[in-house]
Amino acid sequence: MIVKTQRETFFEPLELDCGKTLEKWKLAYETYGELNGTATNAILIFHGLVGDAHATGLHTTEDKIHGWWDGMIGSGKAFDTDHYFVICINLLGGCGGSTGPASQNPETGKPYGLDFPLVTLADMVRSQKVLLNKWGIEKLFCVVGPSTGSMLALQWVKSYPDAAEGAILIAGPARLSAQSLALNWAMREAVQSDIFYRDGDYYGKDPQPSRGAALAFALGAIGWMTPHSMQSKFGRNKLEKADPDDPFAPQFLVEGFLDKRGKDFCRFFDSNSLLYLTRSIDRFDAADGFDCLEDAFREFQAQFLVVTYDTDWRYPPHESKEIVAGLQAAGVPVQLIELSNPAGHASFLRHTDQLSEVVAPFLLEMSQFVWGSANE
Amino acid sequence: MIVKTQRETFFEPLELDCGKTLEKWKLAYETYGELNGTATNAILIFHGLVGDAHATGLHTTEDKIHGWWDGMIGSGKAFDTDHYFVICINLLGGCGGSTGPASQNPETGKPYGLDFPLVTLADMVRSQKVLLNKWGIEKLFCVVGPSTGSMLALQWVKSYPDAAEGAILIAGPARLSAQSLALNWAMREAVQSDIFYRDGDYYGKDPQPSRGAALAFALGAIGWMTPHSMQSKFGRNKLEKADPDDPFAPQFLVEGFLDKRGKDFCRFFDSNSLLYLTRSIDRFDAADGFDCLEDAFREFQAQFLVVTYDTDWRYPPHESKEIVAGLQAAGVPVQLIELSNPAGHASFLRHTDQLSEVVAPFLLEMSQFVWGSANE
Repeated sequence: MIVKTQRETFFEPLELDCGKTLEKWKLAYETYGELNGTATNAILIFHGLVGDAHATGLHTTEDKIHGWWDGMIGSGKAFDTDHYFVICINLLGGCGGSTGPASQNPETGKPYGLDFPLVTLADMVRSQKVLLNKWGIEKLFCVVGPSTGSMLALQWVKSYPDAAEGAILIAGPARLSAQSLALNWAMREAVQSDIFYRDGDYYGKDPQPSRGAALAFALGAIGWMTPHSMQSKFGRNKLEKADPDDPFAPQFLVEGFLDKRGKDFCRFFDSNSLLYLTRSIDRFDAADGFDCLEDAFREFQAQFLVVTYDTDWRYPPHESKEIVAGLQAAGVPVQLIELSNPAGHASFLRHTDQLSEVVAPFLLEMSQFVWGSANE
Repeated sequence: MIVKTQRETFFEPLELDCGKTLEKWKLAYETYGELNGTATNAILIFHGLVGDAHATGLHTTEDKIHGWWDGMIGSGKAFDTDHYFVICINLLGGCGGSTGPASQNPETGKPYGLDFPLVTLADMVRSQKVLLNKWGIEKLFCVVGPSTGSMLALQWVKSYPDAAEGAILIAGPARLSAQSLALNWAMREAVQSDIFYRDGDYYGKDPQPSRGAALAFALGAIGWMTPHSMQSKFGRNKLEKADPDDPFAPQFLVEGFLDKRGKDFCRFFDSNSLLYLTRSIDRFDAADGFDCLEDAFREFQAQFLVVTYDTDWRYPPHESKEIVAGLQAAGVPVQLIELSNPAGHASFLRHTDQLSEVVAPFLLEMSQFVWGSANE
């Protein structure tokens, strides 16, 4: 499936939670499948921290890298593009084509850098709602997200309690734990401690703050994997080529992997976006404005599927269960599924067959509930 | 108890596993209690990665910070200085007074920096054996170590199978897992990516590579704690004072803690020592030179106590159990005790009462076995 990232520029002001306003802003997005005549078959997928709008398919026939959730989205797949109109939009504050810290600040004509406002997860979903409104989509069939995307899907229902029939939250918490805050802090500190980071004003300058950013992404990769999956994949195996004169050069396979993974990521992901997005996630708390999750969830109109992975130490099962407990206490219909997978947090990306087996039946049930049949 | 760190300089060459030789070298150490006439009551304690020779007591009456294992060592404590002569020696390659990368290179008159040879754990125990030989201690009553010290205690018995009656290994593996290698790599990368690190040649220069080092120590602190202990201690609580103009300044309590912890550590711990010690640990494998742990342990003459903590994710229980399985297969007497403590890896430092309850009976049994009575 050949797909294309689209861009839409908005000239209506977007009011942000911080009190500032984006006068002109844009979103990059991809869509798959067709919107039906009643605009009731749309599924909105929120990507994770370092994801983007390119969720499935290839950009060109020569392209070798599929969209990040290719196993989940397409004809006959769990998010079946024969039935659904699937949308994935790059997050506001990101660097995949939507307005973010690398975008031009209209006041200066230069990239925003750290002058970019600190957008919240509510701001991000608000921006996406503007685009969906343009298409006449008032109510999503389903809102979905893995990891950071899970928090955004939850925020969607909180911001617009009746704007989704269903919500699928995968491997994400109601708010970050102290350990998750610590890991996000460490990622940002790695970026910011690079002298070439220049307080975020590094665009077009040489050298780029790539070493600190590479470490940040490598730290991210450690959290994605599990002790077991790292041991299976790397063990204590050595690199074939190691610099014999430098005892501190990568020598073990796992070091070579982290070194390469970090460098690969910082080639396409903007360091400032990493700072902004992690900080937005830090500050997200699904209970904000209420005494507890139960109270925050009381107006929710959607049916929920909450999926968690037994070995995920980044966002462990008890954090998903906290959401489920809140939904149940608020009387919101919810199914909890704890999948067993040694791959931990990365399972939702690496083992889409397993995930499809729980997502597809939920969508089928939903479609029967909403439309009275599997095929609308 | 007022104690003093002693220093001993050695002029006999120390041959290292890498083939190089240290012609002149020194060790910093502390001792507590008295060596008996037969030199059979010595307990050697190996410190952990960022520890030093100051294991118990105070250096001055005004001193507010006790030695790192004050709860374990002293009159009437588990390592009872009324009965035992307790020794703790700063590791070769460290920065607490023993020869390491910050020491003067006799060939250049300047600090070694990265010209310091990559010492192995076997080199470290060999250097300590030289000092003990001087004191006429041929056989230790017990060799003990927590964390990195556990690997050193294991290496002691491997290097000198009949030079200890007993060995206590606490919260340490037979070799690092891929995840532990990854975390050590990240710590080193944090140090090395600081532009002021200057390939290790930063002594006496300004500014010091303190930001990268602070991040490294903060990463270490994350590994020491558990998700549970971080949540209990910090949760999502905010700092009282946060810079309102900088959204990326520490804002959550856990960020303030990591920031301070990192900065505190890099004031007294040399960055190059962190590199050397972590790399030595990476390369340690108790099975080296043999087909398996069982074969490596076959000549061991000591009785073992292996202690592990249920919530320790840095060196989890199954890694201690791998040692125990190897010892059992080799016919070496061993007791395994898995302690339950929410503090994870830090338990051996923070909860010495609990640890004493398993260490003291083991030493009592040992003393009855070795001497036929509790009091020699």
